[in-house]
Amino acid sequence: MSELPTVTTVADVRERVAGWRAAHQTIAFVPTMGNLHDGHLSLVRLARKAADRVVMSIFVNPTQFGPSEDFAAYPRTPEEDRERLSQAGGVDLLFVPSDGEVYPFGTRDAVRVTLPPLASELCGASRPGHFDGVASVVSRLLNIVTPDVLVLGRKDYQQLVLVERMVEDLRMSVRVISGATVREPDGLAMSSRNRYLTSDERAKAPALYRALAAAQAALEAGEKDHARIEQDAMRALEQAGFVPDYVEIRRARDLGKPSPGDAASDLIVLGAARLGRARLIDNTSR
Amino acid sequence: MSELPTVTTVADVRERVAGWRAAHQTIAFVPTMGNLHDGHLSLVRLARKAADRVVMSIFVNPTQFGPSEDFAAYPRTPEEDRERLSQAGGVDLLFVPSDGEVYPFGTRDAVRVTLPPLASELCGASRPGHFDGVASVVSRLLNIVTPDVLVLGRKDYQQLVLVERMVEDLRMSVRVISGATVREPDGLAMSSRNRYLTSDERAKAPALYRALAAAQAALEAGEKDHARIEQDAMRALEQAGFVPDYVEIRRARDLGKPSPGDAASDLIVLGAARLGRARLIDNTSR
Repeated sequence: MSELPTVTTVADVRERVAGWRAAHQTIAFVPTMGNLHDGHLSLVRLARKAADRVVMSIFVNPTQFGPSEDFAAYPRTPEEDRERLSQAGGVDLLFVPSDGEVYPFGTRDAVRVTLPPLASELCGASRPGHFDGVASVVSRLLNIVTPDVLVLGRKDYQQLVLVERMVEDLRMSVRVISGATVREPDGLAMSSRNRYLTSDERAKAPALYRALAAAQAALEAGEKDHARIEQDAMRALEQAGFVPDYVEIRRARDLGKPSPGDAASDLIVLGAARLGRARLIDNTSR
Repeated sequence: MSELPTVTTVADVRERVAGWRAAHQTIAFVPTMGNLHDGHLSLVRLARKAADRVVMSIFVNPTQFGPSEDFAAYPRTPEEDRERLSQAGGVDLLFVPSDGEVYPFGTRDAVRVTLPPLASELCGASRPGHFDGVASVVSRLLNIVTPDVLVLGRKDYQQLVLVERMVEDLRMSVRVISGATVREPDGLAMSSRNRYLTSDERAKAPALYRALAAAQAALEAGEKDHARIEQDAMRALEQAGFVPDYVEIRRARDLGKPSPGDAASDLIVLGAARLGRARLIDNTSR
């Protein structure tokens, strides 16, 4: 069980980072909203390999939740998080800022980072403003931590692609790397929102990944009718008790719509569906 | 006459800056749109005092011009600029990027930085999107140059206040300093857009600063009726042959609307007015 230095202010992060920089150490950064699970811990291990020092932030970002979304209900488990991180090791600095530390002028009139049209597709279609909120917080956290490497999970694949786009388009010098989705034994992607599921719903939940994986298998078997593959997956989700939001086949590289010439290996299937109180997302990235 | 190293790519700027950082040198950055005049050169001298190294950029930023504005006509004088800078000295690196180097995904679907409501007031009221375009380019340039100090002129006072706000709100670690407006002997603020004036208009142009200075003098003499001061200045501009856009008294600190308790010394008068082809701006900051 290792020590886990924790800071809450921008000034304290900068001081710690400046010390590492002076010692010519590189820094990897893992932003999270807390309620840590094995998916987060796998990102810490990835970060550890990528740089000398690892900074994790825990911050439930208000600007990425819509007015009718689960900001208030989002699980906050600071004690358990600290305990897990201490036991797992690998994090050199934990940054747990207040809202005012991240948004010094409040969130209503905050300077915002606004993303290209992809931010309004897929999850963005049912969560307007969500990805702009993500970009607004990630840009701030990057400016605070100034890491060499940013570590994100591929479970939030659209977020990953949009943050990569933001970093490149805004000419930030950080390198983005990503970790594979970590799954429960039955295939359900680990997610803080799995907590919202009743035990009955939890038993049904793996059907989301099964439907997406079946769609990917159909693609790889040479099926060319994407609309049909997507519809089959939507129907499978409905039959499993989900209220599907979307299932879409996209180019893995940039989430652009596929062209007839794209190889199945260049494609990815993404989906989102409601199950009880939870809105679950998943995709077939490996 | 000193040497003036010039680069056009992000990679070349980063390489140069990394060398200075390795030598523990600090960096000041002066972003410009070129067509350099004594106002710009005064910012270079300020930058020189503030840091070990001075980087200037020359980039006519397309995203801060409206569709009916003067992007195409904006004076581009690269040879004269290099000549002036070489003679004046003080710049260690000149960065002259292409549009594609600053906006690698083009300008239409670019990631943008959007500013709080102040960006839609004063000059923003008649130039919608202008300051978001400024924020979008300044944030990129800061990410490329990563200076310790950003040097801006107080002639573009609203731009200065909004960039300060962006830097603080996005938690960028750069320090913003500003240089006083440099004026022609007759009081006209130096500006690239003065080139648009005919000689007849040029003779009338100092009336803008005279009107604003008279308004400031009225404030300092104890006049409390701000609306009347502003109207008097607008009338003076009309009589001088301008088509006034606005004259407004604001809090100097943040350009908020004045409260009854504000001292005259905490206030500033800003104005914009058209004279022939030119839209001129000025203010009473010192």
